[in-house]
Amino acid sequence: MTYTLVLLRHGHSEWNAKNLFTGWVDVDLNEQGVEEAGRGAQLLSEAGITPDVSHTSLLRRAIRTSQIVLDGIDRHWIPVKRSWRLNERHYGALQGKDKKATLEEFGEEQFMTWRRSYDTPPPALADDAEFSQAADPRYADLPDELLPRTECLADVLDRMLPYWYDAIVPDLLGGKTVLVTAHGNSLRALVKHLDGLGEDEVVGLNIPTGIPLVYELDADLRPVTNGGQYLDPDAAADAIAAVANQGR
Amino acid sequence: MTYTLVLLRHGHSEWNAKNLFTGWVDVDLNEQGVEEAGRGAQLLSEAGITPDVSHTSLLRRAIRTSQIVLDGIDRHWIPVKRSWRLNERHYGALQGKDKKATLEEFGEEQFMTWRRSYDTPPPALADDAEFSQAADPRYADLPDELLPRTECLADVLDRMLPYWYDAIVPDLLGGKTVLVTAHGNSLRALVKHLDGLGEDEVVGLNIPTGIPLVYELDADLRPVTNGGQYLDPDAAADAIAAVANQGR
Repeated sequence: MTYTLVLLRHGHSEWNAKNLFTGWVDVDLNEQGVEEAGRGAQLLSEAGITPDVSHTSLLRRAIRTSQIVLDGIDRHWIPVKRSWRLNERHYGALQGKDKKATLEEFGEEQFMTWRRSYDTPPPALADDAEFSQAADPRYADLPDELLPRTECLADVLDRMLPYWYDAIVPDLLGGKTVLVTAHGNSLRALVKHLDGLGEDEVVGLNIPTGIPLVYELDADLRPVTNGGQYLDPDAAADAIAAVANQGR
Repeated sequence: MTYTLVLLRHGHSEWNAKNLFTGWVDVDLNEQGVEEAGRGAQLLSEAGITPDVSHTSLLRRAIRTSQIVLDGIDRHWIPVKRSWRLNERHYGALQGKDKKATLEEFGEEQFMTWRRSYDTPPPALADDAEFSQAADPRYADLPDELLPRTECLADVLDRMLPYWYDAIVPDLLGGKTVLVTAHGNSLRALVKHLDGLGEDEVVGLNIPTGIPLVYELDADLRPVTNGGQYLDPDAAADAIAAVANQGR
């Protein structure tokens, strides 16, 4: 007997096209992102995978993706749980900034450190900055010291893991097929934990958007197959290669 | 200090246009129903009412309505709870039948009794009938004796009330503004309970679609204003009058 965990990264959002850092800013999916969600539903349907419970972040692009997917596979009625702990990495002072302009302003080394280092966060975002979440009602119940003003991937892992243990694991152990719809970095953090990746390994890990990543987990919640299995492995490999080639 | 409860009946569905009895059959909103949900969002926004938690039935037309409304007022991230106890009345053997054909087959008296009597359910729907929910996975965890095969309004009240007491009331007492997105008959049952209506009174009660009905409740959860307040009282009155005139 194994437990089934499905990870899904939301697709393109309105700020992808604008080439802005997003983080905790609550932008919507764009048309391509909606299509990606529909494709995710189709892949789940073809694989005959029927989630029993849905976990999402508090961000619209993940919430809408999960709604489109579940509606598409006739599982719109399953229980829903949401948490800020599944949010995208908080991008600090870079939130809302143009990526190209940031690269030019700070240089490639600094830019890549903020984007890709495991434990170096960007500068903190001021609470009175335009794209701050300090006054966002959805985090009003969060003690101030828990609300991030910037995060590195290590920070994301730290704040994500309690939700894994306290909310997702109990659903898995209850025999439920669990769908987690979230973000590039919250899912990388979860995969690091599941696959026992080192810091160097997770830095090089990319999770394609819109392609469900299925983990069968054993009694100790260790992956039966390391890295899980993408429902469209070819498309996933292409997407991963495309990202890898961006840096060349 | 009062508690705020917002009731919202979903709008037109695909089977409204076809003039079929729907009940527990899981049809989607049509375009008009989507527009009605958008209008509901606008009314909530204008009134400055911000739900803290969303309760829905397990049926797509209510779920989608709540999602459109919450997305429209930037509350897509609030906690969601769903229950079959908020479902529309199970219409028994009438589910999926044409209303006009049913009227002709059984005569007006029988037809109106099934539609409007408080305690006379239509004939039960056979488990192997096309529009039965006996094998629907969303009710798989329900003990067989709880799964309705037909219901009158009295039955709806009986199965809705435990959810009111166990799930909605604790949210209200916790100070949360509660949005309940559901159906004509599950909301009539709830209004009967809230306003202490007699059986004759609830039989004549109509709740318009897409117009939020706001109840301020006192410490004993009794309405400060009997009947609550529609956010667009004129449109609500027009809709109620239109239904009343249908029978003339």
